[in-house]
Amino acid sequence: MYRPEIKVFDCTIRDGGLMNDHKFDLQTVKDVYETCVQSGVDYCELGYKGDKAQFNVDDFGPWKFCDEEDIREVAYESDTKISVMADVGRTDMSTILPKSESLVNIYRVACYAKEVDTAIEMAAQFKELGYETGINIMAVSHVLEPDLDEALAQIAATNVDAVYLVDSFGYLYSEQIQYLADKYLTAVKGSGKEVGIHCHNNQQLAFSNTVEGIIKGINYLDGSIYGMGRAAGNCTTELLLGFLKNPKYNVQPMLDLIEKTFIQLHADLKWGYQIPYTVTGILNKHPRSAMALMKDSKGESYGSFYNRLTSEEEV
Amino acid sequence: MYRPEIKVFDCTIRDGGLMNDHKFDLQTVKDVYETCVQSGVDYCELGYKGDKAQFNVDDFGPWKFCDEEDIREVAYESDTKISVMADVGRTDMSTILPKSESLVNIYRVACYAKEVDTAIEMAAQFKELGYETGINIMAVSHVLEPDLDEALAQIAATNVDAVYLVDSFGYLYSEQIQYLADKYLTAVKGSGKEVGIHCHNNQQLAFSNTVEGIIKGINYLDGSIYGMGRAAGNCTTELLLGFLKNPKYNVQPMLDLIEKTFIQLHADLKWGYQIPYTVTGILNKHPRSAMALMKDSKGESYGSFYNRLTSEEEV
Repeated sequence: MYRPEIKVFDCTIRDGGLMNDHKFDLQTVKDVYETCVQSGVDYCELGYKGDKAQFNVDDFGPWKFCDEEDIREVAYESDTKISVMADVGRTDMSTILPKSESLVNIYRVACYAKEVDTAIEMAAQFKELGYETGINIMAVSHVLEPDLDEALAQIAATNVDAVYLVDSFGYLYSEQIQYLADKYLTAVKGSGKEVGIHCHNNQQLAFSNTVEGIIKGINYLDGSIYGMGRAAGNCTTELLLGFLKNPKYNVQPMLDLIEKTFIQLHADLKWGYQIPYTVTGILNKHPRSAMALMKDSKGESYGSFYNRLTSEEEV
Repeated sequence: MYRPEIKVFDCTIRDGGLMNDHKFDLQTVKDVYETCVQSGVDYCELGYKGDKAQFNVDDFGPWKFCDEEDIREVAYESDTKISVMADVGRTDMSTILPKSESLVNIYRVACYAKEVDTAIEMAAQFKELGYETGINIMAVSHVLEPDLDEALAQIAATNVDAVYLVDSFGYLYSEQIQYLADKYLTAVKGSGKEVGIHCHNNQQLAFSNTVEGIIKGINYLDGSIYGMGRAAGNCTTELLLGFLKNPKYNVQPMLDLIEKTFIQLHADLKWGYQIPYTVTGILNKHPRSAMALMKDSKGESYGSFYNRLTSEEEV
């Protein structure tokens, strides 16, 4: 029996945009949204609400900023809701329209654990404007447990709709996911909040860890088409749709879009299982050093990279 | 604390050989064996003991047949033992040398559940000749439970050293692996036999399912370098070595060999996460139709392939 509370968030354009500075063909973004509608995906995340005072608009595609007119060019009122991510410290809250003037349904605030107070303030502002809200605590594999407990307790006391378990570095394996899922679910128990999960695929564990989250009772599931996302990428939306039993989900349109667009995008941008990303995943490190190595074809050998990261001081 | 009973079997040349008719450069096979030695891999599986009366030697590389002189050209006495696979019905037992004349340490007999009597006979002959033995019951996701129970009971009553849980179609997820691992471990309990696990990666679950096997108590673990194997390929040996805590394992030489050889081999042969293989994995089917589609660039669309396989009669 399927669990109707489960919602799939497709983050292809948002997380995948980290691989191309959000410079997608307009048709690709239209196709992703339309495919989400056809496949029964619950939320389609189109990008970031980046502050134009901080980022040069000429350096990025429109999905770094998610202006309302750009969203309306690709999306419409449908059963697939629109999600936008707002980074703590990188969002100008004065530019957010009231929900009545926007196609956006949910803002997900991304923060590190130490920034949770600011994230809670931002989420409250989004809620006041009429939006659903989520808080994504990034890089949980680097958070000390008392700090995480404190952050979860603070969030549990707010009117935020969802809090996310985010394995930014693709480091966690099943037993750790189970432990953290229990912690998050316990923290929000009785508050009516949902717990979500967002996994990276450095060790080919993004889908399996998402399934562990489902088994534990997590209902909000992040995926991206063909896994497109930063570095090793994400849990693939097509595997999620193949796994979930709710008959509203239909993976077939997504398979056709992969064939049309994402095979070539993947060949060009090379997210996914690549050894430098595997190394940072195994070692619980940010993928930035691996991304630099992937761009430098004359860079150090994989073995040397591994040895260097294994022996370097913790920062 | 690590479990010293755990043994890693690298199957790169054997399972990977299904992608190139076992036609590897001699240097690649030498490199794989030497890298297994350097990385502390316990067993290196070099190929099949194919019957030359059934297979034309000109159609295949030497690792389809594993003649003793070919093995001696790439391997030597070391802490990395040599494994060879013998398929039921495709092996001429009269050609097997006594262990005293061979570098081979273990023969693993591959069979379907209905062939288990023959597999047991073959394993007994290998044991009589002085070898370690294993029986791999293939395609367990298609075996009826009473037939599996009967096969395991039969194997438990023999002097076979190990029996393998094999997810040939890459269909099973964690809860099913846990259930089957318990069944296999219970069946051999007290017999001194080991249980092994061999997973395919159609749904990106090969590594995570192998970890579930480890957590359950399975000690013999199959992997292959960069996942090289039929269709979606296998659990990657490098992820296994990164996960296991025994200090004898060292992933670094394997990362260098991937860079030297397997990135290009993968670009040429295209095993791994490819949508046609994902589709057969989701649907619990043999990958043969997906392999045919991968070879036919003008073949049907991914979506049509999915719809056809979803609606076709069970055979």
